[in-house]
Amino acid sequence: MAVYTTITDADVCAFLLQYDIGELQSLKGIAEGIQNSNFLLSTSKGLYILTLYEQMVEEKDLPFYLGLMEHLSSSGINCPRPMKMKNGDILSTLCKRPAAIVSFLNGVSVSKPQITHTRQVGKILARMHLAAADFSLALENPLRQANWHEVYAKSQARVMEIDKNLPQTIERELTFLASNWLLDLPNGTIHADLFPDNVFFLDGTLSGVIDFYFAANDLLAFDLAICINAWCFEKDGSFNRQKSHALFEGYQSVRNLSAAEIAAMPVLCRGASMRFLLTRIYDWLNVPPGAMVTPHDPIEYLKRLQFHQTITDADDYQ
Amino acid sequence: MAVYTTITDADVCAFLLQYDIGELQSLKGIAEGIQNSNFLLSTSKGLYILTLYEQMVEEKDLPFYLGLMEHLSSSGINCPRPMKMKNGDILSTLCKRPAAIVSFLNGVSVSKPQITHTRQVGKILARMHLAAADFSLALENPLRQANWHEVYAKSQARVMEIDKNLPQTIERELTFLASNWLLDLPNGTIHADLFPDNVFFLDGTLSGVIDFYFAANDLLAFDLAICINAWCFEKDGSFNRQKSHALFEGYQSVRNLSAAEIAAMPVLCRGASMRFLLTRIYDWLNVPPGAMVTPHDPIEYLKRLQFHQTITDADDYQ
Repeated sequence: MAVYTTITDADVCAFLLQYDIGELQSLKGIAEGIQNSNFLLSTSKGLYILTLYEQMVEEKDLPFYLGLMEHLSSSGINCPRPMKMKNGDILSTLCKRPAAIVSFLNGVSVSKPQITHTRQVGKILARMHLAAADFSLALENPLRQANWHEVYAKSQARVMEIDKNLPQTIERELTFLASNWLLDLPNGTIHADLFPDNVFFLDGTLSGVIDFYFAANDLLAFDLAICINAWCFEKDGSFNRQKSHALFEGYQSVRNLSAAEIAAMPVLCRGASMRFLLTRIYDWLNVPPGAMVTPHDPIEYLKRLQFHQTITDADDYQ
Repeated sequence: MAVYTTITDADVCAFLLQYDIGELQSLKGIAEGIQNSNFLLSTSKGLYILTLYEQMVEEKDLPFYLGLMEHLSSSGINCPRPMKMKNGDILSTLCKRPAAIVSFLNGVSVSKPQITHTRQVGKILARMHLAAADFSLALENPLRQANWHEVYAKSQARVMEIDKNLPQTIERELTFLASNWLLDLPNGTIHADLFPDNVFFLDGTLSGVIDFYFAANDLLAFDLAICINAWCFEKDGSFNRQKSHALFEGYQSVRNLSAAEIAAMPVLCRGASMRFLLTRIYDWLNVPPGAMVTPHDPIEYLKRLQFHQTITDADDYQ
């Protein structure tokens, strides 16, 4: 949860003059989003989310993120739609920070996803992959497999603080992944962070997808592997194959996975575990002052990794 | 800012069944309120604020606070109106905490109050004092003058950490206030925390008053003294007499202050400074874990106190 920047009434009134979205009625800082300051903005025309991009997001990448939301939204995906300013731009400046206003999405995240949810998640993921196929911008994934060694290096000196066997486990796995990563699988724009927090439901029906600030170009099936980790494990760490089956079924009802993508699933899931293990380790060891968040436990992702290391047959996920 | 308790989708759906305020559309934790967890709740019928009362608020006092909001709201004061459950109650339980839903108020707080704002604040304060005259519940102010010694005692051992002269200043002033406090002034229900954060404006017009969780029975003119401190000092610590003049003018356009109330103003302002100085000292020395707030600087209120100590003529405020 985060509100890193305080916006005054005068700031927001002046800011809104650039838009044609009605008169200010209310502005509330919301406890959502770790990287940015988010505000629920109510105007005479409706509800919006105002986001101030803090230093954790690369300013140069904002046109990609906002452009992707605009593109997906125009393609019928229920995601936040950037509001255009009177001059046609979607990115502005407020309190010396890049800022944007996007449409508000109804719905709430589910805390205990069921099969019915994972099926819909699979479907929307595939719909996003297809819809993004003709998106014109590209952003190489900063958290792609080739960069994991570098991400690990930032924490390496202190990883022992978490678990004394962790360095060895990570180093061996990084070597395995480097040798077994399959770069010739279909590539495209992936969400890369489609956790339950980022998917809204209304009355059991998926109503929206948010938080595109990890989106990037990478292997499409890697996005599905991220979802397996995010949606198909129980609180006790056990894998729920039914949820995973529904996730695949939902995905394949929209986009068929190739035989190579399916066969790669155990490796992709190990990679997805590694990617989140590494950033969670970093976040665990480096809680930024004022972040007002409890970092996720990295060990949860070590356990995911250890589970996937036991899987030799991709059918075990389906 | 505060969200101390995480509410799941299942929790809130079950909770809403007790009310007749429409179907859940969205729930966002908001970064407002220090003592409670607050959520912006959107339903098919509109916007509401859902509050979970954390341990910092005395549960036994909730009927007073909620009853006062209901009473004031029925009397035409724009304040949060507690929503009645189907069984007629306004106080319920959610996530093992007392919980209530109140109406949402449009408006934003002003960060740089002007004369036009303080005049309206004076007016609404007097209107609340009159409207609360026939409110049937009572709550002795836990932060009344008689209790300041006790409040001070909780921080006494560590006050030197803030400023080495502070203990002597406080102790002398507490003695002065004990001898000069005028308990025979008109008494009633006061807001007791009408800071700029708790007053909303829309297009320069006061649109609502929030946060009644310090409301209590005390001297009415003490409430005005609290507002002098909260609204009539500049960021550099200097007193703005024009703002104070407008505050009085607004107040007296609705309720006449007695000669005794006016004469008592310097003492009441010293008391109002002491009351906030003491709680700010306590908060400064005891930041609760997970509170996600930067405590206010107590020294600001020491300076207010020192200013009021120089005032001998109550006319200097008007």
